Amino acid sequence: MTIAMYPGRFDPVTNGHMDIVGRAASIYDSVVVSVVHSGSTLFSTEERVRFVKDAVAGAGLKNVQVTSHAGLTVDAAHQHGATVLVRGLRAITDFTVEFDMALMNRNMAPEIESAFLMTAVEYLYISASRMRELASLGRDVSDFVPPGVNEALRAKFATRAD
Amino acid sequence: MTIAMYPGRFDPVTNGHMDIVGRAASIYDSVVVSVVHSGSTLFSTEERVRFVKDAVAGAGLKNVQVTSHAGLTVDAAHQHGATVLVRGLRAITDFTVEFDMALMNRNMAPEIESAFLMTAVEYLYISASRMRELASLGRDVSDFVPPGVNEALRAKFATRAD
Amino acid sequence: MTIAMYPGRFDPVTNGHMDIVGRAASIYDSVVVSVVHSGSTLFSTEERVRFVKDAVAGAGLKNVQVTSHAGLTVDAAHQHGATVLVRGLRAITDFTVEFDMALMNRNMAPEIESAFLMTAVEYLYISASRMRELASLGRDVSDFVPPGVNEALRAKFATRAD
Amino acid sequence: MTIAMYPGRFDPVTNGHMDIVGRAASIYDSVVVSVVHSGSTLFSTEERVRFVKDAVAGAGLKNVQVTSHAGLTVDAAHQHGATVLVRGLRAITDFTVEFDMALMNRNMAPEIESAFLMTAVEYLYISASRMRELASLGRDVSDFVPPGVNEALRAKFATRAD
Amino acid sequence: MTIAMYPGRFDPVTNGHMDIVGRAASIYDSVVVSVVHSGSTLFSTEERVRFVKDAVAGAGLKNVQVTSHAGLTVDAAHQHGATVLVRGLRAITDFTVEFDMALMNRNMAPEIESAFLMTAVEYLYISASRMRELASLGRDVSDFVPPGVNEALRAKFATRAD
Amino acid sequence: MTIAMYPGRFDPVTNGHMDIVGRAASIYDSVVVSVVHSGSTLFSTEERVRFVKDAVAGAGLKNVQVTSHAGLTVDAAHQHGATVLVRGLRAITDFTVEFDMALMNRNMAPEIESAFLMTAVEYLYISASRMRELASLGRDVSDFVPPGVNEALRAKFATRAD
Repeated sequence: MTIAMYPGRFDPVTNGHMDIVGRAASIYDSVVVSVVHSGSTLFSTEERVRFVKDAVAGAGLKNVQVTSHAGLTVDAAHQHGATVLVRGLRAITDFTVEFDMALMNRNMAPEIESAFLMTAVEYLYISASRMRELASLGRDVSDFVPPGVNEALRAKFATRAD
Repeated sequence: MTIAMYPGRFDPVTNGHMDIVGRAASIYDSVVVSVVHSGSTLFSTEERVRFVKDAVAGAGLKNVQVTSHAGLTVDAAHQHGATVLVRGLRAITDFTVEFDMALMNRNMAPEIESAFLMTAVEYLYISASRMRELASLGRDVSDFVPPGVNEALRAKFATRAD
Repeated sequence: MTIAMYPGRFDPVTNGHMDIVGRAASIYDSVVVSVVHSGSTLFSTEERVRFVKDAVAGAGLKNVQVTSHAGLTVDAAHQHGATVLVRGLRAITDFTVEFDMALMNRNMAPEIESAFLMTAVEYLYISASRMRELASLGRDVSDFVPPGVNEALRAKFATRAD
Repeated sequence: MTIAMYPGRFDPVTNGHMDIVGRAASIYDSVVVSVVHSGSTLFSTEERVRFVKDAVAGAGLKNVQVTSHAGLTVDAAHQHGATVLVRGLRAITDFTVEFDMALMNRNMAPEIESAFLMTAVEYLYISASRMRELASLGRDVSDFVPPGVNEALRAKFATRAD
Repeated sequence: MTIAMYPGRFDPVTNGHMDIVGRAASIYDSVVVSVVHSGSTLFSTEERVRFVKDAVAGAGLKNVQVTSHAGLTVDAAHQHGATVLVRGLRAITDFTVEFDMALMNRNMAPEIESAFLMTAVEYLYISASRMRELASLGRDVSDFVPPGVNEALRAKFATRAD
Repeated sequence: MTIAMYPGRFDPVTNGHMDIVGRAASIYDSVVVSVVHSGSTLFSTEERVRFVKDAVAGAGLKNVQVTSHAGLTVDAAHQHGATVLVRGLRAITDFTVEFDMALMNRNMAPEIESAFLMTAVEYLYISASRMRELASLGRDVSDFVPPGVNEALRAKFATRAD
């Protein structure tokens, strides 16, 4: 049985992220989506975890659990018994940063493999940072994010604009 | 149970290829290494299959089988019940070609996922084409290929030089 | 009035190429699609021109004409009064080769501008060489090429297989 | 008649930007340079607009107007009747970010085309951020920016150093 | 006699940096490692210079001196009589930024050549920013940095956590 | 004293190649330009050597000698006592291939360093293959190659066209 961890900031989770979650769920026995604690996110860890949990539930993915971690991703992977770190690739630029990080992770935890899965082409240009940018300009992004996230973005920026 | 196929020309198989085979074998239940038929290889399909088989046996990998296929890789994957296509990444350049091919494979067989694994850094610059080039210049490449392959390369180019 | 030339080998024309033709036709007054003579193509210049002409007619593009040229593209552009060379971009790798060629074209004809347009994402992984490869393996590619081209590919490879 | 918009931060405008403005002016009927409002620029929107206006006047470009916008670029394009978004490419790295942004813009406004033009090679390494960096170190950058901008940079950093 | 300058922030110096220092020392008569003053570093200029000096002494490199500079690197190079600027390359992404900077440096000081050396593959994924990130998460990084630097990182983040 | 070798096919030598030769000559005590034997070049080894020799003489470079080699470049470097392999970079794409080759060379000869120098921007798009292509189309390329090479290209293709 292979447990895969999909780590990320998910600030907020997008349809592109969920596309990767679904793909991972189809080829690994169990998938742990783990939201990384961070001091510089738009949404709190609790909010980010909740958005992913809601989206996983909405997609009816049975072998996916959602959690969060502070500290090193490889330590979190060990805790969950994960032997695979899943990363989504949106485009060629992504890869170099991912390559560096994966090599460092391998140095720290040689028994954990990094596996890169490809987002569907229709999600190629959807990133969390673009979602935040568009929402900050008042743009509805409900086409690009799971239900509820668009409203949360709107509320967040409405508050900020006050 | 997840069956992964690792397709390639393996002309000839290198330590870098075998590194990927080992990694795939550690995270998938079963791995099918499939040598692609091709009219323009240095070694025949039979030779290329044999080199991989010998290397898999030498590495003691129990859940790996070696075969060959003509035609579309996704058709071969279907035949073997594989739901994952494994590809090794050596460096950033590899990725764009892989990305294109993986997207086309997804179009033709949406239920098969492409997963990219990273070669160990010490194999970063080892490619089959470089092995052929070095061997053609009379260079011993036994540091970079499984046992027997260096001798086969030497014999091949000795014949040619006659 | 701006005349744009879209040069290429179109061996054979794909839906990706036609996507670029349509985009160019929408922003330039007149578009000249010019098929480059070449000794190493699968289809003859006459066949390649005919495929593009049929596709342009099928798409109902009024301000597009189709021709062919030997020699330098910038010389062909001059002959047609084109001041823009249109190039389609499928992905990041395309760009470097295009960049080099465009800089050389600018050196030879500074008054002609190169403009790069982006293919629709659904055509991102469709290239003429992939079409030839798939067709040579017996794969139907009618989803990716204009009407008639799939049949021509099939006939071409059937002949070859005899 | 094709109206092209060239959006950007222009903080400050460089000779590289103006090179693109001139190229766009030569192949489109009308060009609208639109300075994007932003809270994190060195120069105010008013200053950035004025620098571009002065440079356009100095270059004698008749079919170019200069304006500014807040919010989405595609909304600004609609307001001006622009059907083309012009972007300048300085080097290969530029392209990936541009590609993402252009795909998102296309999603939001399919009838607007993004066209990428290439900067002259002598402007390849000139960016607004490099200009700010060099000026902050006391370096004269008058070779790289339109008349007046070097003085404005000098004044800005002299003030800051007080 | 060729004097080479190796400029950088070295915040803090890593084994990857020292690998480049050693390579430069082997092919140039004299090497000046120059730490760039900067307001946004984790370690002060004095600390960063000391770390490099200690590492150079520890490596027994006789033809290497360590200094620091504010302002333009090319001005610092002139002061030291350096005619070569050495830069280390870790991976493909590095290169584009380096290319831009090197072209600007050449514009400002045509008589100074930029030479790019490659880090050993085992240091491919070691960057100062990754070291700071890992240390901030409490990770020991003594495998990746010269003696003493790990302790300094630990002390720095212990202080911060108070 | 540092001897640098600049290996290449030089089929034929271009102004871009000579730009690198000049830069290498300015920072290394002695430069050996070594033309690689190859069965698939347009010009013979003798012709390619002669073109480089003439260009070096024409440029008045005193510390540059021109030779040729078959087999491994690192073996040729050893023979000449070279401890540096110089490579010219024209653009970002060049680098990945160079990176692979340099890593393999380092594996085979760890005491030889690869140093990458940058071509002048005006030679960015000049490659030997582009010269052959343009000449085959009847284009004068005397702006891009040393004296005599344009004539040799013209003669070569005139012969071929007979």
